[in-house]
Amino acid sequence: MNKEAQPGTVYLAGAGPGDPGLLTLSTIQLLQTADVILPDDLVSDEILALASPTAEIIPVGKRCGQPRITQAEIHALMLQHASADRSVLRLKSGDPLIFGRAGEEIAFLRDHAIPFEIIPGITTAFAVAANLRTPLTDRTSASKLILATAHHAAGKLEVTPKWTGAFPEDATLVIYMPGRDFRALADDLIQSGIAPETPCVAVSKATTSDEHVHTTTLAQLDNSTVGPAPVVLLIGHAIQPA
Amino acid sequence: MNKEAQPGTVYLAGAGPGDPGLLTLSTIQLLQTADVILPDDLVSDEILALASPTAEIIPVGKRCGQPRITQAEIHALMLQHASADRSVLRLKSGDPLIFGRAGEEIAFLRDHAIPFEIIPGITTAFAVAANLRTPLTDRTSASKLILATAHHAAGKLEVTPKWTGAFPEDATLVIYMPGRDFRALADDLIQSGIAPETPCVAVSKATTSDEHVHTTTLAQLDNSTVGPAPVVLLIGHAIQPA
Repeated sequence: MNKEAQPGTVYLAGAGPGDPGLLTLSTIQLLQTADVILPDDLVSDEILALASPTAEIIPVGKRCGQPRITQAEIHALMLQHASADRSVLRLKSGDPLIFGRAGEEIAFLRDHAIPFEIIPGITTAFAVAANLRTPLTDRTSASKLILATAHHAAGKLEVTPKWTGAFPEDATLVIYMPGRDFRALADDLIQSGIAPETPCVAVSKATTSDEHVHTTTLAQLDNSTVGPAPVVLLIGHAIQPA
Repeated sequence: MNKEAQPGTVYLAGAGPGDPGLLTLSTIQLLQTADVILPDDLVSDEILALASPTAEIIPVGKRCGQPRITQAEIHALMLQHASADRSVLRLKSGDPLIFGRAGEEIAFLRDHAIPFEIIPGITTAFAVAANLRTPLTDRTSASKLILATAHHAAGKLEVTPKWTGAFPEDATLVIYMPGRDFRALADDLIQSGIAPETPCVAVSKATTSDEHVHTTTLAQLDNSTVGPAPVVLLIGHAIQPA
């Protein structure tokens, strides 16, 4: 229960949604002891304030798909500092193993025989649901939780085309990075079989002091009523903010 | 960032998978300050050791569907202690909002006008993946993560019948509480359209010192090779333990 960052080792850790209170104890201890910290854009200043005063903090965020730093450059930084026998904390918002590019970073670390460890973090879906005080599953209406993204590629929504059938009836769907055309996305989901009257909550700037919550249905989801990015959508009959 | 349990308030908090290092800072602070703690069976002794020496700890676990205490009794305990102006920490393993019965507890607290707050925890899927050092999604093969259970009701597997179509091709599936007939479950999933050669990892006693990992495919998943309960299954092409 005392996790001290070790020389020459890389830690891929989740920083959670932004509130330092939602960091895990292990990640806090790594923040306090790592020589080098490589945080994503969405890692909050409050969290970085926990780092050792002697730590070197090198932001490696990529915002809105416009890379300020490439994935290869992140890999090179990990290699450079680990090879110099420094401990490296690669800090990703949320959990490191979902919707990041953890697979590429893991493959790089393995290929270069760099010792590494992974520490989970609270992913957005759970933090948002806790704030809304809504269950994510329900014994009678939702036995599955689906976490998905809706990237826009060449103007085309990608959330549903790869579903080979209809959505399951008894699922809660949380969509990360839904883009800005919520109406098109909702229509797409309705066409995939989700009932138009299904509850839908759009949360903007989740878990921050600027959080904005729009509670509606898929049929009524409206572009102009949703707050600014980042937005996460929660869809399903189990979603009942208390 | 200093969360002190307040009199008359109930905190539904996630204890994560068992390792105290994976508790959130907020939950640790609540453990240290709550008057009454109501933990589930799977909350580890190491975690409960963090409670204040003056706290009253009342275990409220229900193991393998054999209730030692009913849901109504848990509700009554929350009401009794909160009404006496004590702070109550209702501590669930993993995250409190998935596969628990959080909806019933939230409804009760709301109906009785008991102030309450929810604090997320690390759910098993993310803790297991971190230990295995495998991504849960992948830009090329898995754009969705599905968390499901496979309860046995009257001898019948319930993981798939409610899917109205085939499983999506590009998903990672994590099954909590898969029961013990892994072969029947795998056949069921294959019939639902998941390719037999899909990677499958069965993890027994995840994140404990007795953890047992069985790496195979859906077609080869074998009842006798999987370790003792609790077991979690990870299925999908993104699952590649490093």
